[in-house]
Amino acid sequence: MTERTYNIAILGATGAVGTRLIEQLETSTIPVNQVRLLASAKSAGKKLTFKGQDIIVEEATPESFDGIDLVLASGGGSVSHKFAPEAVKRGAVVVDNSSYWRMNDNVPLVVPEVNEADLQAHNGIIANPNCSTTQMVVALEPIRRAYGLSRVIVSTYQAASGAGQSAWEELVAQTTAHNAGEKMVANILPVKGADKHYPLAYNLLPQIDIFEDDGYTHEEWKMIHETKKIMFGDKNSKSVKVTGTAVRVPVPVGHGETVYFETDPNTGATTAGIQKALSQADGVILEDDPKTQLYPQPINAEGKRETFVGRVRPDLENDDSFHMWVVSDNLLKGAAWNTVQIAERLVALNLVCVPAGAAAKFIEA
Amino acid sequence: MTERTYNIAILGATGAVGTRLIEQLETSTIPVNQVRLLASAKSAGKKLTFKGQDIIVEEATPESFDGIDLVLASGGGSVSHKFAPEAVKRGAVVVDNSSYWRMNDNVPLVVPEVNEADLQAHNGIIANPNCSTTQMVVALEPIRRAYGLSRVIVSTYQAASGAGQSAWEELVAQTTAHNAGEKMVANILPVKGADKHYPLAYNLLPQIDIFEDDGYTHEEWKMIHETKKIMFGDKNSKSVKVTGTAVRVPVPVGHGETVYFETDPNTGATTAGIQKALSQADGVILEDDPKTQLYPQPINAEGKRETFVGRVRPDLENDDSFHMWVVSDNLLKGAAWNTVQIAERLVALNLVCVPAGAAAKFIEA
Repeated sequence: MTERTYNIAILGATGAVGTRLIEQLETSTIPVNQVRLLASAKSAGKKLTFKGQDIIVEEATPESFDGIDLVLASGGGSVSHKFAPEAVKRGAVVVDNSSYWRMNDNVPLVVPEVNEADLQAHNGIIANPNCSTTQMVVALEPIRRAYGLSRVIVSTYQAASGAGQSAWEELVAQTTAHNAGEKMVANILPVKGADKHYPLAYNLLPQIDIFEDDGYTHEEWKMIHETKKIMFGDKNSKSVKVTGTAVRVPVPVGHGETVYFETDPNTGATTAGIQKALSQADGVILEDDPKTQLYPQPINAEGKRETFVGRVRPDLENDDSFHMWVVSDNLLKGAAWNTVQIAERLVALNLVCVPAGAAAKFIEA
Repeated sequence: MTERTYNIAILGATGAVGTRLIEQLETSTIPVNQVRLLASAKSAGKKLTFKGQDIIVEEATPESFDGIDLVLASGGGSVSHKFAPEAVKRGAVVVDNSSYWRMNDNVPLVVPEVNEADLQAHNGIIANPNCSTTQMVVALEPIRRAYGLSRVIVSTYQAASGAGQSAWEELVAQTTAHNAGEKMVANILPVKGADKHYPLAYNLLPQIDIFEDDGYTHEEWKMIHETKKIMFGDKNSKSVKVTGTAVRVPVPVGHGETVYFETDPNTGATTAGIQKALSQADGVILEDDPKTQLYPQPINAEGKRETFVGRVRPDLENDDSFHMWVVSDNLLKGAAWNTVQIAERLVALNLVCVPAGAAAKFIEA
């Protein structure tokens, strides 16, 4: 029997996540037949490489997806809104890194370590969660399985690259300017296209994405509802309470998170038990030894696929409650790696096919 | 009647906090007769200025405090351990910025906006709290007075200068090196004299101060017990539950804090009510308007005496529970300004005198 090979399109191939999608695909287990790199008209004509082979970036059009089996999309919400249904219509399965389809009831939102089973019922589009959500659920899931989970309060320390390559470059430019005694220029953060922009260098910005009417940012909203959908199968699940604050910090790559969580009192959770569950969990590396000052740090997590967890300790005044510190490369597990990992699982489970009539679910009336 | 004037010694005058103690004293309401600047032998002979007048830094000895009314101390724990009792013995009142005396039952731990009344019973030493504690209690106290306070979970985003001038300089040097493609050198953070040192530039360090046996850092321990002592009069108070995680971030000056808190259900706390209480509180500036992207940022707080609060919003799944974001200049309200402010209040309340026999309380057997 000949092994099936796959024609893969990378949509948004030139961005911070796009270039990492190429790298992650190069080292993945997926048998690749052909790779097509797609981007906006502005980036068309650029030359990138896949496994040493030059590939010219093409402008994405609906026809770009003809003959494609799998699309790895990271071109932003409006791009995925437009092109994901076109790809599905042409028989391609889309793993989408944008936020556009995540809350759609026909779209599974998947972190393989947590809810790989949700891939089985896909309709052609599978969503990749928000970066800050992904690393948190990777760390929380082994705890939930062993000890239950009723409540989460998270504070994030999010890297500039979560807002794209240009935000990362702006941070470095601002830092260089400030160290030279020059004025810092801010045109991107906190949110591209917002009314006001502030420097991130040597600063903290408690705004990631736009504000909702209830005073939460959309990033915080995502962490709440995506966590519920991924871990509890319902974006409005009442089984767990999730809340938190998202803050941008002057770090290029690697998100940090302080996570407070409450377990089921009937399970008798202990710090040692939680550490053991984490150390045995897929995709998690426990770095937790105060005696040797071992704990996760963004500069050590950069370029790694895993989620790093440390500082696990009990809340001293609330039973069954604990704290931990979680770090991961936001461009890899938070984006490109989780996307390619979903694609790997789709291949392994023989799920790279669009069910008949599925595309209609994504065509707006 | 002639106004009383004061002879003031600044102990640890050459450090990041010491130089700000001089500046804050220059602009304070305290009628100063004479200023004596004290430091270690290494810094003796340096020339600093007070209100335009040159002052030569002297090596601190017990006799340095002869004729001194008020000591503003910021030379670290071992220096305050040694010299504070010597100063009190000589009739000087010490406002101490180190952690050494904070938990001593004979020493009030004071943030004037919160517990100025505790100054009345002082025994010659008054302690200034840890920087991360001070700004948090300034923000929490108006809420506690209006709506009660039963629980606090804080995550800190602490600036390099909280570990002193040298840590601040190391951060800038590391950033400059990294931007030039050179190796970052780390000799100070996370903790001076610890076995391991890590770069802070473009990184996050979830360790501030040494680790306790229970897995908490001493910084976290301080936030818990100092908050209880300042707000509830007992370092082990059971009236409030306080916990959290302290993280060092690559910011030179200005600590950020995400603060989750629970109020008394009988008071009917609302976001608008909390915002009103904060806007009317001494030492607080409410910066809270998502529509205009107004929220506290370290670069705006630098050089200011106030504590800035924003992002006030209800927890969406827990009644009577809220979140906020608190920023203040860690070298001013977190250190030098709170120290000088305590001194101002001691002067205003005519409390610059050591009760008879008080010194004996601080002389170890």
